[in-house]
Amino acid sequence: MSDRPAPSPFPDRAQRLANRAAKRDALLLAAVRMFNERGFHATSLDEVAASLGVSKPTIYHHLGNKDQVLLECVLIGLKQLRGAAAIAAARPGRGIDRLRDFLVRYAQINMDDFGRCVIRTGDEALSPESAARFRSLKREIDTAMRDLIAAGVADGSIAPADPRLLAFTLAGALNWPARWFVAGGALNAAQVAEQMVEILITGVSPR
Amino acid sequence: MSDRPAPSPFPDRAQRLANRAAKRDALLLAAVRMFNERGFHATSLDEVAASLGVSKPTIYHHLGNKDQVLLECVLIGLKQLRGAAAIAAARPGRGIDRLRDFLVRYAQINMDDFGRCVIRTGDEALSPESAARFRSLKREIDTAMRDLIAAGVADGSIAPADPRLLAFTLAGALNWPARWFVAGGALNAAQVAEQMVEILITGVSPR
Repeated sequence: MSDRPAPSPFPDRAQRLANRAAKRDALLLAAVRMFNERGFHATSLDEVAASLGVSKPTIYHHLGNKDQVLLECVLIGLKQLRGAAAIAAARPGRGIDRLRDFLVRYAQINMDDFGRCVIRTGDEALSPESAARFRSLKREIDTAMRDLIAAGVADGSIAPADPRLLAFTLAGALNWPARWFVAGGALNAAQVAEQMVEILITGVSPR
Repeated sequence: MSDRPAPSPFPDRAQRLANRAAKRDALLLAAVRMFNERGFHATSLDEVAASLGVSKPTIYHHLGNKDQVLLECVLIGLKQLRGAAAIAAARPGRGIDRLRDFLVRYAQINMDDFGRCVIRTGDEALSPESAARFRSLKREIDTAMRDLIAAGVADGSIAPADPRLLAFTLAGALNWPARWFVAGGALNAAQVAEQMVEILITGVSPR
């Protein structure tokens, strides 16, 4: 017989916090998947709750109302994108290599649950204050991309271009999979990301 | 004194039809601009009607309910895109030149009122039957783009690539201005379209 004590039925503070965070994460994931699949307006928190076998007040308790749930979802996606930008900004190397690194991560995040929600959410779905915050965080990511482009143009690894227009072109191409990519096809998200970035870097006409 | 007869206060059949078409066009343009600016869900037909000094029953009479108005708007945008594809398919020349021609028109349409609505409308905003029709028409445009790519790969003017992934990459980049382009900036829609297509054709890294 083991002399390990039976687990206490009374969770300690650390267990309670971990349990609370796990519930919050599960609710956010269920919500973001339903937003992405059905659209924000067609999703009811009742159905999100039901998909986890709980009731709507549980969502209110952990996350707040539907607008607040959406805001949390886009903030998670934006945090992932900012993380990718920070990694690329910190690594050494030529501008084109750091940009490639960032773009591949950027594309992959956009094919994942929370990044997909960032792309699919229009300003008009959020309250004016949340929309302003949303826009400002997106601008940070846009600025990070332009900075990498400017570094590459400066070191000669990127062809001279208007950084703003080039960033919009790259971002648009790599945002779009949020609308069409379906897991389980011939290519996984990492492969789609790699191949799309390669197309953008080499261009359509033969070299 | 002129011997031209005074215009009759009783319009003839041709005048009545032209008048009816002009009213319909004005209602559709007012609706699509409000959908694009505020989002479909946040737009009320009352406000669309008010912006033209008429009342909601006038919209019902000419166009139907809000879902039908949205469907009409996206059908106009899709017709413009199909027209651009037909022009590119019919013209002679290398695949890359026909593709460039199509992409520039495609991008410009997406920055205009009805094309913008095509891009901004998710399937979930339409009824299931309308959404199926919407998807099928978008697929036609996608197929036209892939055909131009295949022609260019065959004649050596386009670098070998997966036509599906290349089409998604190009379409995504050129759909995105529907979300950010604002008329009245440093570049007009035609210039943005030309420069973005040039970036996609030559690529990010120097040649």
